[in-house]
Amino acid sequence: MRESPLHELSATDIARATNAGTLTAEAVVRSCLERIAQRESTVGAWAFLDADHAIAQARDIDKSGKPRPLRGVPVGVKDIIATADMPTTYGSPIYANHRPAWDAACVAAIREAGGIILGKTVTTEFASSHPGKTMHPRDPERTPGGSSSGSAAAVADRMVPLALATQTGGSVIRPASFCGVIGYKPSFGWINRHGVKPLSESFDTIGMMSRNIEDAALLASVLTGRSMMLEAGMIERPRIGVWQNNMLERAQSVTLSRVRDVMGLLSRGGAAVEFVQQPDEFAELDAAHHFVEYLEMGKSLLFEYREYPDRLSSALRKRIEEGRSYAPETCDRMQQVIETCRHRMAAIFLKFDVVLFPSTLGEAPKGLWNTGNALFNRFWTALYVPIVNLPIGVGDNQMPLGIQLIGREGDDRRLLWLAQSLEAMLDGKAASS
Amino acid sequence: MRESPLHELSATDIARATNAGTLTAEAVVRSCLERIAQRESTVGAWAFLDADHAIAQARDIDKSGKPRPLRGVPVGVKDIIATADMPTTYGSPIYANHRPAWDAACVAAIREAGGIILGKTVTTEFASSHPGKTMHPRDPERTPGGSSSGSAAAVADRMVPLALATQTGGSVIRPASFCGVIGYKPSFGWINRHGVKPLSESFDTIGMMSRNIEDAALLASVLTGRSMMLEAGMIERPRIGVWQNNMLERAQSVTLSRVRDVMGLLSRGGAAVEFVQQPDEFAELDAAHHFVEYLEMGKSLLFEYREYPDRLSSALRKRIEEGRSYAPETCDRMQQVIETCRHRMAAIFLKFDVVLFPSTLGEAPKGLWNTGNALFNRFWTALYVPIVNLPIGVGDNQMPLGIQLIGREGDDRRLLWLAQSLEAMLDGKAASS
Repeated sequence: MRESPLHELSATDIARATNAGTLTAEAVVRSCLERIAQRESTVGAWAFLDADHAIAQARDIDKSGKPRPLRGVPVGVKDIIATADMPTTYGSPIYANHRPAWDAACVAAIREAGGIILGKTVTTEFASSHPGKTMHPRDPERTPGGSSSGSAAAVADRMVPLALATQTGGSVIRPASFCGVIGYKPSFGWINRHGVKPLSESFDTIGMMSRNIEDAALLASVLTGRSMMLEAGMIERPRIGVWQNNMLERAQSVTLSRVRDVMGLLSRGGAAVEFVQQPDEFAELDAAHHFVEYLEMGKSLLFEYREYPDRLSSALRKRIEEGRSYAPETCDRMQQVIETCRHRMAAIFLKFDVVLFPSTLGEAPKGLWNTGNALFNRFWTALYVPIVNLPIGVGDNQMPLGIQLIGREGDDRRLLWLAQSLEAMLDGKAASS
Repeated sequence: MRESPLHELSATDIARATNAGTLTAEAVVRSCLERIAQRESTVGAWAFLDADHAIAQARDIDKSGKPRPLRGVPVGVKDIIATADMPTTYGSPIYANHRPAWDAACVAAIREAGGIILGKTVTTEFASSHPGKTMHPRDPERTPGGSSSGSAAAVADRMVPLALATQTGGSVIRPASFCGVIGYKPSFGWINRHGVKPLSESFDTIGMMSRNIEDAALLASVLTGRSMMLEAGMIERPRIGVWQNNMLERAQSVTLSRVRDVMGLLSRGGAAVEFVQQPDEFAELDAAHHFVEYLEMGKSLLFEYREYPDRLSSALRKRIEEGRSYAPETCDRMQQVIETCRHRMAAIFLKFDVVLFPSTLGEAPKGLWNTGNALFNRFWTALYVPIVNLPIGVGDNQMPLGIQLIGREGDDRRLLWLAQSLEAMLDGKAASS
């Protein structure tokens, strides 16, 4: 295990070794800090990092003998999430000097489990669209995606094995796909949101970035209090649906070709793979998500809009104004559309264990003025379903591509199990090719 | 209108007069402050009040000529709700010196509408059960109810015409009933919760206290962005269901007798009044609410539990520990019970415009060590339905009693309309008796 540098270890391996007493949290943290010192100027993943404070946390953990699920595991925390011992800026100059009075519930849970909050990762402005300073780790001219830009880039660049992220539209899955890491957005409501600055209460969901499924399951167990242990042979013959709709016309051809590769791999692995045509009523879903999100954003950012209009990006100001022009009665109708689709989706999951859809249109685009398109993510977020991004090779520019594995609401364990099976197949393929 | 002192005016009358230019916000605020100066030592409704700051706000409003829905209306804000210009303690010594970086979304909306945040009203510890300093305005040995203790007492005592409150179990309706004011808990999700410290995401709902239904409708219009205007003749022959279950065995006999009076009044007024037997599956609802609330509380208060255990009341510490021992999988099952009842309730509302149930077991009990029993409130809160408390006379000790008017989820306007009709009947009865 010690062959790779410590900052490349998985969270699972770190916790195993620190609990066994063969590794100290301090050594892991120092290795991560060294990696960050080397790479941060070309990645810009961190909104806040205090090396001494991180080391002090690690020493505290090392002093306590108690076995703990995340013992000594460094975690990056998206800067939309409150930390009592570190600034929390929400990606906005309004809060440049802000320090909350508390840790978010998810941060408190990580600390209780023995994890180390390494620092705060860059978020777009209020987890909406206006980008932060983060660059794609493989190409500084490309976006890492957003809004969880720093979390995806830091995990991809081996600065930290795990990072917290949030998704309202596509803010976990898109950056995970662009950066080539695992992104996991649990079922809506599975992780307590206290301390996450709200954008849209109807959709805001805490998720995470990792470099393998096992690590995501480990962190999710801590955050949800549920057993996410992935046992071998959980499903005998997985039933896979490959979602078809007219959005796919907008995907790059390499994206669709990689999805076909995955289908072939799954079929050869013994899964039952078939296409699922999107039901007609789903046509309105993306627009419904947009409406509800914007209306809610117009309310949750009202204080900032009224008090600091000049310190909001003009893009966000326009979004807030759009949301403020929306009628709650129309929002009720949109929620009804979403509700109908949720029921329809539950019925579809009687026939499938998991559904596949590309994570993004294609590779991370050039340009840092925006964080890419969430078209392939928003309607899934609206459905409350758990989603995993799994990297599936690279595109024409050698940039990562990803696929969304979508599970039934509340059946995250099955989803993670299947994601892990596919991950193993893809690793095997990579190893043999 | 000027015959009553300004601090006794309704919010509707204040806004009408300030917008017409016949009254200044400053005069209203000064009158409220005088009333508070006289009465606060025997009521203890306020967690924070800065007279100069309140007057300064009023002068700002008076300087601006714009007509606004809450122009010059003083509003008390429960101290579980964030204010950027006033301390926010959440009823806990942990946050004795805490000042948030923002206004809650509901506070920002009130300011935008021209309302004046008069001060912060006392909440129980984190809006859970441990009481604050507030006494019942009519009898200092009795509880005003909770958790929105200060909001109910301040409105009842004519210190302020409107106050924000929140309800997770019975925290709007119970204190409103004990203190003899209107309490209105809207449909779940109708008022954006950003800036309210979460106890239980599944149930936390922002509501309000007022002295008449018209004022509640006015504030609700501002907070929801929905038209709550109550037009005459909205419903021709109201269909009233009087809810029957075995909890009623625990009600004081005077409570049941007052409910019968209301039934008679409604029948004579032309409403179709009939009993509704609670369906069997509702038997689990109170326990399900308890389970979900406690589990969520164990997560949302984890930071305080870990960092400041000695500054939590022992009652709350025990509740948190109880919640931490609960399994999320059982919580899923409990949510399922609640969901089933919600659907059943929607079906019941096909036959009724509104359902009646006593607000509390009886009058506000003696003793300030607890805030009374929420048994009659919790299961309604779990159903997401809108609820109004309407005062219906007094009990054996001359303390107020109240009735819950319960509406269909999302049909708050119909509920408020019916509440206003009944309010007029009760006023007529009071006038003629």
